Amino acid sequence: MPSSKGYAALDSKAQLAPFDFTRRDPGPSDIAVEILYCGVCHTDLHQARNEWGISRYPMVPGHEIVGRVTFAGSSVKKFKAGEVAAIGVLVDSCRKCAQCASGMEHFCVEGMTETYNSIDRVDSSVTRGGYSNNYVVNERYAHRIPGNLDLPAVAPLLCAGITTYSPLRHWGAGPGKKVGIVGLGGLGHLALKLAHSFGAHTVQFTTSPKKKDDAVRLGADEVAISTDVPAMKAQANSFDMILDTASAPHSLDFYTALLKRDGAMVLVGLPETPPTIGVFNLITRRASIAGSMVGGMPETQEMLDYCGKHNIAADVEVIPIQKINEAFERLLRQDVKYRFVIDMSSLKA
Amino acid sequence: MPSSKGYAALDSKAQLAPFDFTRRDPGPSDIAVEILYCGVCHTDLHQARNEWGISRYPMVPGHEIVGRVTFAGSSVKKFKAGEVAAIGVLVDSCRKCAQCASGMEHFCVEGMTETYNSIDRVDSSVTRGGYSNNYVVNERYAHRIPGNLDLPAVAPLLCAGITTYSPLRHWGAGPGKKVGIVGLGGLGHLALKLAHSFGAHTVQFTTSPKKKDDAVRLGADEVAISTDVPAMKAQANSFDMILDTASAPHSLDFYTALLKRDGAMVLVGLPETPPTIGVFNLITRRASIAGSMVGGMPETQEMLDYCGKHNIAADVEVIPIQKINEAFERLLRQDVKYRFVIDMSSLKA
Repeated sequence: MPSSKGYAALDSKAQLAPFDFTRRDPGPSDIAVEILYCGVCHTDLHQARNEWGISRYPMVPGHEIVGRVTFAGSSVKKFKAGEVAAIGVLVDSCRKCAQCASGMEHFCVEGMTETYNSIDRVDSSVTRGGYSNNYVVNERYAHRIPGNLDLPAVAPLLCAGITTYSPLRHWGAGPGKKVGIVGLGGLGHLALKLAHSFGAHTVQFTTSPKKKDDAVRLGADEVAISTDVPAMKAQANSFDMILDTASAPHSLDFYTALLKRDGAMVLVGLPETPPTIGVFNLITRRASIAGSMVGGMPETQEMLDYCGKHNIAADVEVIPIQKINEAFERLLRQDVKYRFVIDMSSLKA
Repeated sequence: MPSSKGYAALDSKAQLAPFDFTRRDPGPSDIAVEILYCGVCHTDLHQARNEWGISRYPMVPGHEIVGRVTFAGSSVKKFKAGEVAAIGVLVDSCRKCAQCASGMEHFCVEGMTETYNSIDRVDSSVTRGGYSNNYVVNERYAHRIPGNLDLPAVAPLLCAGITTYSPLRHWGAGPGKKVGIVGLGGLGHLALKLAHSFGAHTVQFTTSPKKKDDAVRLGADEVAISTDVPAMKAQANSFDMILDTASAPHSLDFYTALLKRDGAMVLVGLPETPPTIGVFNLITRRASIAGSMVGGMPETQEMLDYCGKHNIAADVEVIPIQKINEAFERLLRQDVKYRFVIDMSSLKA
């Protein structure tokens, strides 16, 4: 049983603090990795504080993991000891249903095993995430990392990257298409980079004029200040797709009015309260409001390979694990450009 | 100026009563028709009572019109005097925008001219609908009627028919697809007939077990009683599309949980209050909630031709115009199988 060290929340009110635990022994199809970097996703904060009411304690968060393979089981084909590997939001699924068979493991009909706070399908333990020194995972749920990318900046691709890459691809962001991005945070800044790279005319929506220069640097062809009513009206009926990455409460109707015929507004987060929708905006342009959630294993690898080829990764602020509680507070204030990543060597400090 | 007789609401509280008015003279591209039959759509009731706050009085409702051509202008190619013609929800549009150019006149960027309660693009008069003895319309916005169909039963195809045909086609209802229909009224009963005819496995949702036999007669492969929780749970994750024709308030989340991956819930009516949506059901299956509204002129003709070929039309109760106020009350009680159609010869009585 690999002996593990990490940071855990012991209950919903507690600060994250050092925590020792064990993981299951790696089997013949598993790899074990020494974790090098782990991104800090807003989900980690929601879960540490039980804001979705499904938390299991002690909780070790973290599902944007980059590590070095320390062990590869006898059947493992994708990795050798010493190579780097990435682990994202899910680490197992039934592997038998139509979704799993088609590489859409995140929609597994039996439910995916999440990287933390899930019940492990192998030994029924509670999965513990990447705010720790190691991980054990079946090779199917681990990914190869292009050699040219900076490893700390790769970590956020495993959740924020695939969460934006997948819907942009599915809804056809590319040349000749106009794509809006709502929210300029961990997800939004990667959505901008990706949509721009795909060749779409990319518009960043923001409430904050001071974000304009950064949005342009990240790939926005236009920046629309969402409080500027005439500027917003000028964008009416023009978008093929609007990707909504904003977590703060906001009107969807405001944006569905900007869609053209057959346009889609795609939500990739769970708002705290169910939004109401103005059906008029949908029926008068055959538009839709849709949802999307991470991506399957083949598409996650495709995304990493694409990012390697096009030299795309996250803008990160690297922190030691000892600063995780402070990082959570700064995350709540949106005081990060654009993703915290924990340097896990700090665990040894 | 054609002299017209009809039934009008003089204000939002008034019963419909006899009303004389004039229509514009037909131009070279217009036809004039003697109205034979006009369907009674729930919209007529909403508008007569100003329930959407946009009513202009005196209001002559009616946008499911079947008539006989009494005059064809010198440029008219589609019709000759003596033939039958159909007129639906819209009677004009800008004819220049990309939507109009692609036969999607109902999404005209300048706004369509509705058959009643709109401003006529030719003479700026208020359009008056089909609860009357005649109509004048540009031939582009009139349709040919297959000879084999019963004329009273054709009338509802012009709104209820195209409103269901268009989304069923757009979202691919056909062999190998599972399609749910919510609501079994004027729209729902045509949606059942059409989806069944297209080869989709068709499921009628209803709160009322006593509607089961009729739903099966109309084309349902299955009938799901929406208050039967175990039966509904058994349908989870199985629908490619659910077409929502119900006007009474109801939960959308209840149905989005039944969609499979990439499934769509399509709304074709405006609920009285904006619905809230549970985003979880959307992101966990990449599903969407969409809207649709009637159809363009080419698709409306396609629908009529399809219905002729497959002998599909509405189940109707034919009434004289003198019973229109009673019909409105019965409509509110859902006491009609499945559409009232006014025999306009009764105007002469």
